[in-house]
Amino acid sequence: MIDITLIGTAALMPIPQRALTAVFLACGGHSILFDCGEGTQTAARKAGVSLARVDMIALTHYHGDHIFGLPGLLQTLTNSERTEPLYVTGPAGLSQAMEPVLKLTGGTPYEIILLEIPAALKLSELISGWPVEAKLSTFKTEHRVSSQGYCFELSRAGKFQPENATALGVPLRLWKVLQKGSSVEVDGKIILPEQVMGAPRKGLKFVFTGDTAPCGSLTAAAANADLLICEGTYGDNAQAEAANEYGHMTFAQAATTAKAANVAQLWLAHFSQMIQNPLEYLPNATEFFANTICGRDGMSTTLKFKE
Amino acid sequence: MIDITLIGTAALMPIPQRALTAVFLACGGHSILFDCGEGTQTAARKAGVSLARVDMIALTHYHGDHIFGLPGLLQTLTNSERTEPLYVTGPAGLSQAMEPVLKLTGGTPYEIILLEIPAALKLSELISGWPVEAKLSTFKTEHRVSSQGYCFELSRAGKFQPENATALGVPLRLWKVLQKGSSVEVDGKIILPEQVMGAPRKGLKFVFTGDTAPCGSLTAAAANADLLICEGTYGDNAQAEAANEYGHMTFAQAATTAKAANVAQLWLAHFSQMIQNPLEYLPNATEFFANTICGRDGMSTTLKFKE
Repeated sequence: MIDITLIGTAALMPIPQRALTAVFLACGGHSILFDCGEGTQTAARKAGVSLARVDMIALTHYHGDHIFGLPGLLQTLTNSERTEPLYVTGPAGLSQAMEPVLKLTGGTPYEIILLEIPAALKLSELISGWPVEAKLSTFKTEHRVSSQGYCFELSRAGKFQPENATALGVPLRLWKVLQKGSSVEVDGKIILPEQVMGAPRKGLKFVFTGDTAPCGSLTAAAANADLLICEGTYGDNAQAEAANEYGHMTFAQAATTAKAANVAQLWLAHFSQMIQNPLEYLPNATEFFANTICGRDGMSTTLKFKE
Repeated sequence: MIDITLIGTAALMPIPQRALTAVFLACGGHSILFDCGEGTQTAARKAGVSLARVDMIALTHYHGDHIFGLPGLLQTLTNSERTEPLYVTGPAGLSQAMEPVLKLTGGTPYEIILLEIPAALKLSELISGWPVEAKLSTFKTEHRVSSQGYCFELSRAGKFQPENATALGVPLRLWKVLQKGSSVEVDGKIILPEQVMGAPRKGLKFVFTGDTAPCGSLTAAAANADLLICEGTYGDNAQAEAANEYGHMTFAQAATTAKAANVAQLWLAHFSQMIQNPLEYLPNATEFFANTICGRDGMSTTLKFKE
């Protein structure tokens, strides 16, 4: 299962009623923070999630409202006596963007590893302890600068078929090894996991957009996601042109994307400070995609395998 | 008069119940912000003060909890279409400390002027519109790094003596000029303000410490202040040694300083996050100085001339 917490929902600048948009994802005792604006560390504490042992900070782009919380968070991790390395990833330009951040932060007793994810990343190959089924990938978004969204997937193996294992003569004590995805040797013969497992079952998929105008790469990446957290900077349909000019979208455009991608649920976030109450504009989204929720700071959900 | 707002009261890192310690001072339609940690801009909005037209940001030192809010605030000023120059002052090392801050911030449509205040500064000579009576000075503090506190004074001229003006033959229409501190010419004779004004009256004085262990320079600078906002990182008397080792002080030490300096009122701030409720430790201060108040985020006062 995957725990998702929406830490904040603001755009451009933090305001008293809304922290800047950031998302915390936890899975199998490990975690990733998506974006880190000014105040993200405080909003995370308010939301009841701990960033003390976060494995990775995944940045969607390098505008201030998505990275100005880094120096404070990195120093807080120092104060909490962290020693585990911390991965920071983001689109092209990562080391250049991080240079003044790291200069401001000063030294840290833990290593900060900058990493541009080339394509899909099997997290367990980078950080020990992550479920082997967890995969993080990126997709291009349409903002005014180098930017990307993130797709986190947890795949699910097929059901174990005890009758196959018995027929192949696999002793009971080796069933777990096969179930965990490794092959075993029985009487000098190699038995592969796929010989005793059914077809893979539907896994879980979470997608976070960062800042973007509507685009095909987002719709493709979000296909059949269990949860899409999508920017909805503007509530009013009339602002579609302005939204796109600045590399953003309206509630209606986010909902149209969610519908085209056939996601299970859409959460809107990254609200312009012109929006006092996002709920006022929710009908602009639900008209196109019924299962749309206006994000609220601190809201969370657990995505679980079906059946 | 001087309006003082305590924007936050936390130390080291912002926490949900306390923003980082910063102070907003307004006088005659102009203003100064003392320190700017992560979240100061949001806490200022919560406290109901606008930083949009702040004239100067006065930093006490360059530790993260006092400066990491700068990139966000400076970008917010950009977004508010500010054009007036902004002065940033601080102790030795200002331009070095500001280099990564300004790099992170990026360009601004207003000028940022870095200024190490040499001694006392008559604000009206730097920024037009400040009352001519307003003076900002600094004093050395005892922290682990280059650091300073600030003293803001508003002097007050003596009472106008109409009988003197009449005796000197000054026409009524010129009285205001003399009252405002300029000389006038009457029948070819120069009349100086001091010829028609009584002795200067007691002005107003506000002192902010930043981070410091108890020290003579602070006690001297705070002499007879109307309000001293002093750090009180530790509440427990037993932590005096640890406090001083880290360049901080206890509530009791802050109160002892206030008493020695004969201030009218002491506000404590910069509370360690170990302190859940600062009021629990207040008796440790009031034992030495009765008029001590535990700072709360957003509290404010107006210092007014007596009589």
